[in-house]
Amino acid sequence: MSVFTPVSEAELAQWLRNYSVGGLAGLEPIKAGIENTNYFVTTSQGRYVLTLFERLPAEELPFYLELMAHLARHGIPCPAPIADLSDRYLQHLNGKPAALVTRLPGRSVEHPDVPACTELGLLLARMHLAGRSYGAYLENPRGAKWWRFAAREVMRFLDAPSQRLLEAELAFQAGQRFPDLPRGPVHADLFRDNALFEAGRICGVIDFYFAGVDALLYDVAVCANDWCLGHPARDRRLDEERTRALLAAYHGVRPFTEGERRAWPILLRASALRFWLSRLYDFHLPRPGMLVHAHDPQHFREILELRASHTACWID
Amino acid sequence: MSVFTPVSEAELAQWLRNYSVGGLAGLEPIKAGIENTNYFVTTSQGRYVLTLFERLPAEELPFYLELMAHLARHGIPCPAPIADLSDRYLQHLNGKPAALVTRLPGRSVEHPDVPACTELGLLLARMHLAGRSYGAYLENPRGAKWWRFAAREVMRFLDAPSQRLLEAELAFQAGQRFPDLPRGPVHADLFRDNALFEAGRICGVIDFYFAGVDALLYDVAVCANDWCLGHPARDRRLDEERTRALLAAYHGVRPFTEGERRAWPILLRASALRFWLSRLYDFHLPRPGMLVHAHDPQHFREILELRASHTACWID
Repeated sequence: MSVFTPVSEAELAQWLRNYSVGGLAGLEPIKAGIENTNYFVTTSQGRYVLTLFERLPAEELPFYLELMAHLARHGIPCPAPIADLSDRYLQHLNGKPAALVTRLPGRSVEHPDVPACTELGLLLARMHLAGRSYGAYLENPRGAKWWRFAAREVMRFLDAPSQRLLEAELAFQAGQRFPDLPRGPVHADLFRDNALFEAGRICGVIDFYFAGVDALLYDVAVCANDWCLGHPARDRRLDEERTRALLAAYHGVRPFTEGERRAWPILLRASALRFWLSRLYDFHLPRPGMLVHAHDPQHFREILELRASHTACWID
Repeated sequence: MSVFTPVSEAELAQWLRNYSVGGLAGLEPIKAGIENTNYFVTTSQGRYVLTLFERLPAEELPFYLELMAHLARHGIPCPAPIADLSDRYLQHLNGKPAALVTRLPGRSVEHPDVPACTELGLLLARMHLAGRSYGAYLENPRGAKWWRFAAREVMRFLDAPSQRLLEAELAFQAGQRFPDLPRGPVHADLFRDNALFEAGRICGVIDFYFAGVDALLYDVAVCANDWCLGHPARDRRLDEERTRALLAAYHGVRPFTEGERRAWPILLRASALRFWLSRLYDFHLPRPGMLVHAHDPQHFREILELRASHTACWID
């Protein structure tokens, strides 16, 4: 499990005296997650998630917390950071930067159907529109600069065909320029497990700690590469019906530009490259305590190859 | 009913395009309330309340909306204003200033028991602590200055004993000075119908449109004069058990000062005076459309007389 920094009930009860959320009623470690230590916290007032930031750069944390606060006050169902009595979102607990955010209801969907992809498209577009008035800037922390860093780190672990694929894709992506794509804050990691559904509706988008400013379409590509894979799960092509549902729903809220239509196949590849690289990195260069969660890098290698060799569907 | 400004579904659906809350799914006028026009609004995203401000000064509206936003992000269960795509809480609709806020669950309690008064005390103290970091200032709009204005307006409608009582109380209150009482934003109208309960917990404090900066203890006095009346309802003395429950719970979160102990009987009278005056004003000088809701001024006249003649209970 991914509790890197233990927190006792006594420590938390004391810490919560800096907040207006009432007394501690329950504390439960959250096993999912590989980046931070998370606890479910229940107080006399409500349900929250406590996050202790284990390795995110401290100077980047305000970007994430303020982004969540911004989106929440625009009605986007994302965790809302709770300000403490000194009016700050970011505090410290047991030596780590820490924040308390609202806990959202719902459950993630393992096998999203067409209506779920429609729901995702609607929400993603609304989130992007709401994010446009967010003033802070953070470059996508898993963008092109990071690809090159990670590629250097993992190259020696790869067999020759994978090395060739990685080098070819980096070279291909380096040749792409999309100066005119609509940009803004993107979630950049909106996999199925980061969306909570209740009664067919998304009532929670969680885990904004890979967010950054990038092409909005990149967010759609990340989603498509996870939500719209063919059935059975081993089919890594995009299911046309669900992909079109995602795109059409999004388009109805924030219409795509002509430039985005052209960029779509390339951003699908870019998103596959990013997750192939991060999984390679975590697989070959694990940090202590996170081995259990290392995802198979092969999954995104296959997605990358398929996206590079097949035409990506789009809406008409 | 108190819909002064009608809003059609078509008008609202168009207006909601400036927000990130999804499409309109339902619109229902709210009959309660005498100051504003309110609608329950349901969208594909969630449940909201739409308020069109009918007579509050436009320049004061940001104080209320920002206060609710401030308290909400501190975890206080109050309506959270929704920012529109241009990042503003305050908009216009059908010629009126208008805002969209979250709709809270729960129901108000007509006959609060001791646990309900304890719950209220806890929440009120937490709200006051959270409000301390709120930077904006608005004088309590129903404070001493307004008393004198309202008294001049209603005096001619009163019989001689009421005129004497009113003049005596205004003179008494004018002689009181509490420069050292802890001050901050107060709700100032937290009657039973403005607190929503679910499973014995307050899950909503609503209607902040009489809020202002004043002695925090004034808020407690307003609550006591409504929540802690004796049973049956016609007994306007303070029920000792519930009053002590309210005070003790509050004290456990934000301990009262010695000055507050001394000011308690006087602020109980001040709060009774304020509501006697506003009810007299609304009764004798009604605005069009609000007659149905005019409360009997006699209720608070009797409370004022009782508070002036009886010792107010306090905690030890």
